[in-house]
Amino acid sequence: MKGKLLSFTLFGESHGKAVGILIEGLPPGIEVKVEEMKAELERRKGIRRFSTKRRESDEPVIVSGVFNGFTTGTPVTVLVWNRDADSSYYEEIRNTPRPGHADYPAKVKFFGYNDYRGGGHFSGRLTVGVVIAGYFAKKLLERFGIRVRAYIRRIGPVECPQVEPEELFASPNPYCPDEDAFERMLEEMEKARKSGDSVGGTVEVVAINVPAGLGGPWDEDIEADLASALFRIPAVKGVEFGLGFRFAEMRGSEANDPFVVRNGRVATETNNHGGVLGGITTGMPLVARVAFKPTPSIYLPQRTVDLERMDEVELRLRGRFDSCIVPKALPVVEAMVAFVLADHLLRRKAWEGVVR
Amino acid sequence: MKGKLLSFTLFGESHGKAVGILIEGLPPGIEVKVEEMKAELERRKGIRRFSTKRRESDEPVIVSGVFNGFTTGTPVTVLVWNRDADSSYYEEIRNTPRPGHADYPAKVKFFGYNDYRGGGHFSGRLTVGVVIAGYFAKKLLERFGIRVRAYIRRIGPVECPQVEPEELFASPNPYCPDEDAFERMLEEMEKARKSGDSVGGTVEVVAINVPAGLGGPWDEDIEADLASALFRIPAVKGVEFGLGFRFAEMRGSEANDPFVVRNGRVATETNNHGGVLGGITTGMPLVARVAFKPTPSIYLPQRTVDLERMDEVELRLRGRFDSCIVPKALPVVEAMVAFVLADHLLRRKAWEGVVR
Amino acid sequence: MKGKLLSFTLFGESHGKAVGILIEGLPPGIEVKVEEMKAELERRKGIRRFSTKRRESDEPVIVSGVFNGFTTGTPVTVLVWNRDADSSYYEEIRNTPRPGHADYPAKVKFFGYNDYRGGGHFSGRLTVGVVIAGYFAKKLLERFGIRVRAYIRRIGPVECPQVEPEELFASPNPYCPDEDAFERMLEEMEKARKSGDSVGGTVEVVAINVPAGLGGPWDEDIEADLASALFRIPAVKGVEFGLGFRFAEMRGSEANDPFVVRNGRVATETNNHGGVLGGITTGMPLVARVAFKPTPSIYLPQRTVDLERMDEVELRLRGRFDSCIVPKALPVVEAMVAFVLADHLLRRKAWEGVVR
Amino acid sequence: MKGKLLSFTLFGESHGKAVGILIEGLPPGIEVKVEEMKAELERRKGIRRFSTKRRESDEPVIVSGVFNGFTTGTPVTVLVWNRDADSSYYEEIRNTPRPGHADYPAKVKFFGYNDYRGGGHFSGRLTVGVVIAGYFAKKLLERFGIRVRAYIRRIGPVECPQVEPEELFASPNPYCPDEDAFERMLEEMEKARKSGDSVGGTVEVVAINVPAGLGGPWDEDIEADLASALFRIPAVKGVEFGLGFRFAEMRGSEANDPFVVRNGRVATETNNHGGVLGGITTGMPLVARVAFKPTPSIYLPQRTVDLERMDEVELRLRGRFDSCIVPKALPVVEAMVAFVLADHLLRRKAWEGVVR
Repeated sequence: MKGKLLSFTLFGESHGKAVGILIEGLPPGIEVKVEEMKAELERRKGIRRFSTKRRESDEPVIVSGVFNGFTTGTPVTVLVWNRDADSSYYEEIRNTPRPGHADYPAKVKFFGYNDYRGGGHFSGRLTVGVVIAGYFAKKLLERFGIRVRAYIRRIGPVECPQVEPEELFASPNPYCPDEDAFERMLEEMEKARKSGDSVGGTVEVVAINVPAGLGGPWDEDIEADLASALFRIPAVKGVEFGLGFRFAEMRGSEANDPFVVRNGRVATETNNHGGVLGGITTGMPLVARVAFKPTPSIYLPQRTVDLERMDEVELRLRGRFDSCIVPKALPVVEAMVAFVLADHLLRRKAWEGVVR
Repeated sequence: MKGKLLSFTLFGESHGKAVGILIEGLPPGIEVKVEEMKAELERRKGIRRFSTKRRESDEPVIVSGVFNGFTTGTPVTVLVWNRDADSSYYEEIRNTPRPGHADYPAKVKFFGYNDYRGGGHFSGRLTVGVVIAGYFAKKLLERFGIRVRAYIRRIGPVECPQVEPEELFASPNPYCPDEDAFERMLEEMEKARKSGDSVGGTVEVVAINVPAGLGGPWDEDIEADLASALFRIPAVKGVEFGLGFRFAEMRGSEANDPFVVRNGRVATETNNHGGVLGGITTGMPLVARVAFKPTPSIYLPQRTVDLERMDEVELRLRGRFDSCIVPKALPVVEAMVAFVLADHLLRRKAWEGVVR
Repeated sequence: MKGKLLSFTLFGESHGKAVGILIEGLPPGIEVKVEEMKAELERRKGIRRFSTKRRESDEPVIVSGVFNGFTTGTPVTVLVWNRDADSSYYEEIRNTPRPGHADYPAKVKFFGYNDYRGGGHFSGRLTVGVVIAGYFAKKLLERFGIRVRAYIRRIGPVECPQVEPEELFASPNPYCPDEDAFERMLEEMEKARKSGDSVGGTVEVVAINVPAGLGGPWDEDIEADLASALFRIPAVKGVEFGLGFRFAEMRGSEANDPFVVRNGRVATETNNHGGVLGGITTGMPLVARVAFKPTPSIYLPQRTVDLERMDEVELRLRGRFDSCIVPKALPVVEAMVAFVLADHLLRRKAWEGVVR
Repeated sequence: MKGKLLSFTLFGESHGKAVGILIEGLPPGIEVKVEEMKAELERRKGIRRFSTKRRESDEPVIVSGVFNGFTTGTPVTVLVWNRDADSSYYEEIRNTPRPGHADYPAKVKFFGYNDYRGGGHFSGRLTVGVVIAGYFAKKLLERFGIRVRAYIRRIGPVECPQVEPEELFASPNPYCPDEDAFERMLEEMEKARKSGDSVGGTVEVVAINVPAGLGGPWDEDIEADLASALFRIPAVKGVEFGLGFRFAEMRGSEANDPFVVRNGRVATETNNHGGVLGGITTGMPLVARVAFKPTPSIYLPQRTVDLERMDEVELRLRGRFDSCIVPKALPVVEAMVAFVLADHLLRRKAWEGVVR
């Protein structure tokens, strides 16, 4: 994720020495508490029952950029050693790309040199770094009262009813503010798990107290930057803001949010627009939804091609798979949104500092 | 749109001297025919009946980067003078931001210095430059047989049934390959127009003959780059690839596309994934859908705030508005997709040139 | 010149329709006076006697990004139409690259598609755009009291003695604060002119009131960014800061500038370091020197190769050449320095806005 | 160093856990031999007698991006753990910035949060990462026969006579191809060392077999990109190409290099231009010179300011300092040049792959 003033680069492979992140542009003076960072990483493990059995402690090692408990302003590098990787299995399926996975296009892209073990650099394990980036970004946003929270909006056929931002931020349930919907989501995931299958879902992410004026037209469009960040998360196949695709079915008179005065400030009566108009934040809550496809690794037999012999074969995967990755995606989605917001906030401060 | 090797910057304002584009990174030797470029620009005007009455000839003036009918390899600048702008009206509504428009957040973003006339730099008129960028990108892609085409997938409640890529590229109808659906779309737009309202829709864009291996994980993700480009188009509120949001309702066993051998090459039996896995093209047709909200400018009365007096007022817009911008968005969507593909193709060629 | 928050792109060819510039990232609210801009452009014409006889009015046409006399915050495009170009001559020398010019490598780089007339995109005429960029950057810097001024430090064997910043900024002579040296420089240029030759020189540029803290180590190094900008000016072959190459001959004990307290602030007693330590400004005047090679276009006969026949031939140039480009380089050097400083100042403001 | 297709970011602090590098854009299939990499790192230690007594084994740990002995095409991270750091001393001088060092401006830049121990992120130790980047870049260049070599051109008053590229590449002396000059350089460094002082110098770097056509005008200028990279090396205060600053004293008729035919190819008779004209390589050897100031850390007493009490004090440094860093700069200079060349080579291949 390369912002103008804030960017990060993920490194590492699922079965290599480590995974990690290098963050550039973090301002100095952000307080860093490893326990807090670990708590965020813990969220990334999702609901144990529906997650891969690979369970590592994910101990973040801060290699650079933090001194005496605060960011220094120079590049921050954090890595997490890999410990519990079992690569033996991947040699078996090296020539039989898994449907729905990057195996085949990656082989083409990297001329066969890529580390194919456990998905290599494509592995969901790389999101460890994303969550760490989010940790720093959230700390920066907190200074301005900006908060970001994601919840599961859908698992397969089960959709959570629309919730108001206040409800969401007040909810004690870390996955979904609607307990009833959450129960049914769990059932859906369980059904998928039991049948050796997987299931998709959507995540809704909300950011509050975002000031108006972040973003801009064309190259500065904050929706475009957010979408760009969110699509980089593995398995994401759709992103929408506000009413998103539902706008396509509407008339302008229904879709437009009237401007009103609330507590002496400009606001909109409804928030169909999801907090962004013309690529710029309006001061209303930012609302986006992200579609995740079902994990492609499933236990059911699938058809694929043996790339050496160029014939079609049946593939039966063994290993430790998530039956649903949506619960573990929550902190990852939040991290991407927080990071983009932090970049745009910094850009805003640059202008505020010179426009008189 | 800033790619790694290919980027463009739009400039101009709706009621300023001109709108235009500067393109960097175009390789030398692309043949440029102004008539072809104009034909593309003509498509951008959409269906006359449902488009703004502002009708300009959109004569592209190539200012730099083209010599003897070919690109030179240095920055290409093309501009189109504005002629038919009527700004008188905009002074009236200067302090009453139009609902659904960028007026209010733009005023915050630009500290009140933005050119508010006709939407200024936010105007749909700026897409003139996008279409010009697309013209060059398509010419480059053509050398490799890559073709990009967009069609209207939905207008309000009317959805075009799924079409196969071959059908689409063979269709004589420039808006929608399904004549029956198109008829009903026209009716829908007419209804909106007559009631002084506007209507939204979706565009589906397909690219064929895209080689496998473009894109990459994380920072090189081609879906992210495409989404980033598409969200920069005004009024876009959602982007999805392949089955997109429908993936969220599915099981992995339904969603995964089996790999097969077709004509001695690796392909997938179905194309749920829309041509990209793990951020990398698979060689299958690239398929994306883009949601457009209804044009916010409507003739029906709306509520807004007078920013000077900070009280709520009724707003009745006069002017020349599109009742539906979806038809004119087609070449814009194609242009964005073509441009991103061209950037990734160039990056691919860099690696092909050094990996031995 | 691509900075993080401020960048510009030059476009146009010497004998094409126009030359111009697109500037991105300029904050809104910078007052623009065309007469001031023209005065800067006038400086770029140098001393009439030693400059090309091509004399155009260089009327800047502001195409975008300025509204009601102030920058809007969106991309600023300014162009200057070409009027007095005589291309007939260039067909003659198309296959015989001029020694010291980009003709030959440009032909290779652009696969023969480049506009070779008058140097095309390589022409010194493109510095029109640089000067315009400098105009905006200087206006921004002025708000913070930062001023940039360049003077001729050397023409051939004649060197101006070191001057103090105060002297320089107070000098009425626009080329060199030392009248005696300037007289001898003029003689040197005249001698070169009369013999159908050209002569090189150096420019020293000084910026005062630059706050401490701009720049940073490695990727943020402001000397590197300044050098990068300065080397983009045609004919520049060397850049140095402070004592520059003289440091190589020195001992640390001579070279180090002692820190002292001046008016209650930290300063250095001497300014050998030229205002930058470790890539960061110290608050002392920024001092850089730039070496310009003699204009390669001379009237004396030269040897070159006929690229078609691949044999060696004599080349006698006709045309209108500068006998010395150093005088006209002054506003160009200032512009590059001002632009880089403005970019770093913006970045600084971003951090100042969030570090608490 | 951020190129268009190839970039690296250094991380770490002198007395932190580690120093290292993350490289993005390296193509897959580059063979990696740790012993070769260590040999390059060994060169970075310079001549033992004149280098800091901190002697670490500099064992590179390849964390990511290399699989089965070849680059994978995903980000390469290499780190070297810090072992022999003694930080106790730095608390003493925390408030008394060392003359010639970044201590003072760094404190301003980072609002006091920077790791000041051993220079922190400004430490020469960070060049470990640069050398590693150079290792990869050189391997890529080797495929095309491109070789880069640097030598000491000057130490204080002692200058090595000009050498031809063939001589340089054939020389067995790793520091200077002229044995006599090298002897005198050693004496000069010894004199500085004995007097508790340090001495500056210049490095000349030469690249051979660079194809014509790399680089371009303005934003693509390869001299600008090289200078930008070279100025990022600590202590560099000047960069010049070909005759560099000597051009300023010359006439065009002396300076211009006649084009000639050599072995059926276009060449120049002389190489005053140093292999680049108009920002583009000409096919002649690339020649640049880099000025290094004397190491600011010396044992002689110096004057500085106590930043807390704001009064002037005498500073006597203790610690382990280089009396001359020029010998250890050689692989660092080579690395920067190789890296920039590799980036431009990749860009060239992109165009070669599409221009027909």
